[in-house]
Amino acid sequence: MQKGILTVISGFSGAGKGTLMKTLLSRYDDYALSVSMTTRAPRPGEIDGKDYFFVTVEEFEKSIAEGKLVEYARYVDNYYGTPADYVFEQLKKGKNVLLEIEIQGALQIKEKFPDALLLFITTPSAKVLEERLRGRGTETEEVIRKRLERAATEAADVGKYEYIIVNDVLEEAAESMHNIITNSKFATSRNARFIKDMKSGIDSLLKGE
Amino acid sequence: MQKGILTVISGFSGAGKGTLMKTLLSRYDDYALSVSMTTRAPRPGEIDGKDYFFVTVEEFEKSIAEGKLVEYARYVDNYYGTPADYVFEQLKKGKNVLLEIEIQGALQIKEKFPDALLLFITTPSAKVLEERLRGRGTETEEVIRKRLERAATEAADVGKYEYIIVNDVLEEAAESMHNIITNSKFATSRNARFIKDMKSGIDSLLKGE
Repeated sequence: MQKGILTVISGFSGAGKGTLMKTLLSRYDDYALSVSMTTRAPRPGEIDGKDYFFVTVEEFEKSIAEGKLVEYARYVDNYYGTPADYVFEQLKKGKNVLLEIEIQGALQIKEKFPDALLLFITTPSAKVLEERLRGRGTETEEVIRKRLERAATEAADVGKYEYIIVNDVLEEAAESMHNIITNSKFATSRNARFIKDMKSGIDSLLKGE
Repeated sequence: MQKGILTVISGFSGAGKGTLMKTLLSRYDDYALSVSMTTRAPRPGEIDGKDYFFVTVEEFEKSIAEGKLVEYARYVDNYYGTPADYVFEQLKKGKNVLLEIEIQGALQIKEKFPDALLLFITTPSAKVLEERLRGRGTETEEVIRKRLERAATEAADVGKYEYIIVNDVLEEAAESMHNIITNSKFATSRNARFIKDMKSGIDSLLKGE
């Protein structure tokens, strides 16, 4: 049976991804949060190795060249990526690694690591999504519109994820998310080895070995 | 969000399918056991509508002709099948319907009802499977061999199921099975409608409708 599950989390802005991830991390011992690597400068209060791994452009490009990133992208003038070492170290320890990332990155990861679990966090309805975006009360109409436009694009790709987590009542969504991650270890697609061993084990019994 | 889940259960002889199903039925309110229809005569103590729906060959063939069976098969001189009405009535009530059936029937159901959840119950290893078959102490070598041969055939098709339930510790297997069934409601493959509504809802917001 496989150890930790690489869990990729995407979702609409305002759906509560961050809160859900924090809830799992604080409530259960079996999670680790992937820490991104970036070339941007640390902001006040940000801690190297906790908020990000802060590196130079040279170091980042060396990591790319050496295949040491699970995925990466460049936004404006900075690189952002996911260091593979940390992820695999945690998975080996049996931790489910939570990795928050947008859809294109998520699909990249699934292609490279078919055992990754892709979860999409959504509000119960479009109406609630709008309420949550407005509810913050801190954004201009322009920003809200941009987020809705982005949500419309994302909605077209939700079917590429394995599960949706409908974040209506936080407690229920967190429990459901935890159960889905935990039990994804039992998906036949993640147990080719177990199934193969079972089959050859039965064959051996029949041959009287 | 969809209501009950049609859950098809197969597994190795001796893996504990019956015990697991009984455990779910006794512990949670959200399950119903599918009752098969058959043309064979009731055995002493069997109750019509509980153990089986006992019908005549004419009645059974009428049910086939009218498409009233989810699946059916003929063994020796008798028909066995799953009446659709009962299944859909229970699903509508929000019950997860448990249906124990061998692999060919399971695949038939998945083809007809893509939302069905296919679970395969297994022992933790081939060795334990043999122990459980022998442990009953009531079977001849010939019978045990036949069961192992059948298990070898079944093992080749396990990958067609969505999840394996490894029945090592009954309590854990039952909980895992319950969680898998409950959360399968959140699989994107079972939520095409929700995703579509979400997308058109966001599009409407953007159009200012």
